[in-house]
Amino acid sequence: MSIPLKNDRLLRALRREPVDCTPVWLMRQAGRYLPEYRATRARAGSFLAMAKTPELACEVTLQPLARFPLDAAILFSDILTIPDAMGLGLYFVDGEGPKFERPVRSAADVDRLGVPDMETGLRYVMDAVRLIRRELADTVPLIGFSGSPWTLACYMVEGGGSDNFARIKALLLDDPATLHRLLSVNTDAVIAYLSAQRAAGAQVLQVFDTWGGVLSPAMYREFSLRYLTRIARELERGDGASRTPLILFGKGNAPYLEELAASGCEGLGVDWTVTLEEAARRTHGAVALQGNLDPATLYATPDAIGRQVRIALDSFAAGNGGSRDGHVFNLGHGLSPDMNPDHVAVLVEAVHSHSTR
Amino acid sequence: MSIPLKNDRLLRALRREPVDCTPVWLMRQAGRYLPEYRATRARAGSFLAMAKTPELACEVTLQPLARFPLDAAILFSDILTIPDAMGLGLYFVDGEGPKFERPVRSAADVDRLGVPDMETGLRYVMDAVRLIRRELADTVPLIGFSGSPWTLACYMVEGGGSDNFARIKALLLDDPATLHRLLSVNTDAVIAYLSAQRAAGAQVLQVFDTWGGVLSPAMYREFSLRYLTRIARELERGDGASRTPLILFGKGNAPYLEELAASGCEGLGVDWTVTLEEAARRTHGAVALQGNLDPATLYATPDAIGRQVRIALDSFAAGNGGSRDGHVFNLGHGLSPDMNPDHVAVLVEAVHSHSTR
Repeated sequence: MSIPLKNDRLLRALRREPVDCTPVWLMRQAGRYLPEYRATRARAGSFLAMAKTPELACEVTLQPLARFPLDAAILFSDILTIPDAMGLGLYFVDGEGPKFERPVRSAADVDRLGVPDMETGLRYVMDAVRLIRRELADTVPLIGFSGSPWTLACYMVEGGGSDNFARIKALLLDDPATLHRLLSVNTDAVIAYLSAQRAAGAQVLQVFDTWGGVLSPAMYREFSLRYLTRIARELERGDGASRTPLILFGKGNAPYLEELAASGCEGLGVDWTVTLEEAARRTHGAVALQGNLDPATLYATPDAIGRQVRIALDSFAAGNGGSRDGHVFNLGHGLSPDMNPDHVAVLVEAVHSHSTR
Repeated sequence: MSIPLKNDRLLRALRREPVDCTPVWLMRQAGRYLPEYRATRARAGSFLAMAKTPELACEVTLQPLARFPLDAAILFSDILTIPDAMGLGLYFVDGEGPKFERPVRSAADVDRLGVPDMETGLRYVMDAVRLIRRELADTVPLIGFSGSPWTLACYMVEGGGSDNFARIKALLLDDPATLHRLLSVNTDAVIAYLSAQRAAGAQVLQVFDTWGGVLSPAMYREFSLRYLTRIARELERGDGASRTPLILFGKGNAPYLEELAASGCEGLGVDWTVTLEEAARRTHGAVALQGNLDPATLYATPDAIGRQVRIALDSFAAGNGGSRDGHVFNLGHGLSPDMNPDHVAVLVEAVHSHSTR
C-alpha cells in the first residue's frame, strides 16, 4: 500500500479514526440479487467455475461497486475453499447449498488433513485477489476472508449445511480430542490462507464464524472462541497505521463480545440481536464495530430502510460516547437473492447521508 | 384437581417447592422418533387427522409415558390450531412443514380475523384434553400449550415456515399498526385458548415463542414481549397452591430473561445458548426455570448424555444458591425424528438419578 487509497474510510473506521461519514459495505454484496451477477454466473456455467476463475471472480467482485458508492470491495469466493483444497471435494447442488464428496467422518479422516499450499491448491484465490487489487486501482480497500475453524469444521463433518449439527455435536461430545485436532489444522490453514490473501493484496481480513452461535456457552468458548483468538493473536499483519485489520464476524456472538474484543482483533461484526449501543458499551472502544442492520429490512419500503439505518447509526453513537467513529456499517448477515437492488442503493445512500460529520 | 397427583414434581418445581428429584419432560416427547407414534400416524393417514381426532391425540400423548418415567404429559396438538380455527386453512406438505391456504396478506385480512369459539372450532383440542386427563388418572400433570402471538403471526403472514421472515418483517416496518392489530387478536385468542384448555383439565400451560429470537431487541420488546406479558397478566389461572402455572418458552430469549421473569409467568423456558447458572442468577428466584440441554446431545453416546445432564443440573444449582428446587429439566428445543428412543431413556434416568435429594 504505497499509494494512498482514494477512499480509506473503512481502514480509518477500523482504526477508530475520524472519517467524513460512516463507511458501509454489505455481506454478500456481490451476489444473486444483482442481474449482472446472474448473467456472469450463467456464462460461467456454475457457481464454483465462477469462484475458481480469477477473471470472473474479479468481475463479480466489482459489480456492486459500479452500482453503489460502497466503501469496500470484498473478494468473491466461497467460504469452503480451504476444505476443498484439503481434498474434501466441494460441490453444489442447486437449491441445497454446498456439499462435500468426502466429508470428515473419523479420526483417520482428520489425520489425513493438512494445511493446503496456498500458491498451488488455492492459487486461484490469490490470483483473484491480485487481479481485483489491480482493477480497483486504489479506489477502495479489498477485503479478504475465510470461514472460521469451527464453521469450516461444521461443513466438513456434516458434509454440507445442517439444521441440527447432529454429527459435529456428537463428535464434540464423544471425541473432543479429535475435534480439537480438526480445529487445530483448520486454524493453521485459516492463518496461512489469510496471510496469503494479505500478501496478494487484501487490505482488510474478515473471519466468518457463521455457526458459532449454535453452541452452548462452554462449548463456544472451547471450540470456537479459542481458535478465533489464536487467529487474532498469531496472524502476522503489520503494525501501527499499516496494520491489516482483522474483523471477526459471528452470528449469535452477542454473549461473547467482551471476550472477542479482548482477542486481539481490530473489528467485531455483530448481528441484529444485540443493539450497537450495547455492543459499544460492552467493548468500550477496544475494537471497531461492524453491523448490524437486520437484512430483512431491505424487504421494507425505502422510508422504513432510511429510518432503520438512522436508528442503527444513532445506536452505535449512543454507546460510543456520542461519536460515530469506529463504526463500519453493514448488515447483521448477508444479502439474499430476492432482495431489490434499488433498496440496497437506498441503504448505502442513507448510511452516508445520515452519518455525515 | 380435587384428587392429589401421584407425581406432582412438576407442579412443585414450578412453585419452587422442594421435590425428591428434578422433574423432567421433553418438548416433542410425543413424536416421530417413537415407532409407536409412526404407527398411529400411519393409521390416522395424516398428521392433521391425528391431531384433530381426540382418541388419537390422546394415544400419542400417552406413548412416551409408557416408555419413560416422565414427570408430565404434554397435549399432542399443533402449534397452529388457532389460526386454523380462524379460517386460514392449515395443511401440511410432507417434508415442508405447515402451510396456510389463506395467509394474512393485507390489513383487510387482519380485519376479518376474530377469536375462534373454543368449544366449536377448537372443540377437538378440548375433547383431547378431557380424554387425556381421564386416561392419565392423576398420575402426572397434563401440560396444555399455545404458540405465542408473535410466532403465530409469523406463520399467518409468511403462510408457512420461513428462513428470513421477509413478509412479516416488512409488515412490521411498513405498517406496524396492522401488525399490532394482528398480534392483539392473536393474544385474545391465546388467552381464550389457554383458559379453555385449563377449564378442560390442563394443569400447566406453556406458550411457545419459537420465533421471538429472530427480532432485534427493540422489536422483540414491542412485538413479542409485550404480548407475552399481556398473556401472563391477563390469563386467569387461580391463586396460591392451586394456581395453574404458566411457562413462557422462547428460542433466543436469553437477552430478555429479567423482563420475562417480571412478566408474571411462573416458569421460563430457555434454550442452550445461555447457561442455567446465568439464567438463575439473572432471574434470582422470581420464576422457575425450564431447560436447557442442547437436543443434539441425544446424538452422542449414553456416557456423554449423562455427563451433559449433570452439567446442566449443576449449572442451575450453582446459580440458585446451591439448591436444585425451581428447576424443570427439559431440552432447549424439541426432539427430532432421527433421535434414538434409548438415548431419551438414558436422559430421563440421568436427570432423576443425578438430582435425587
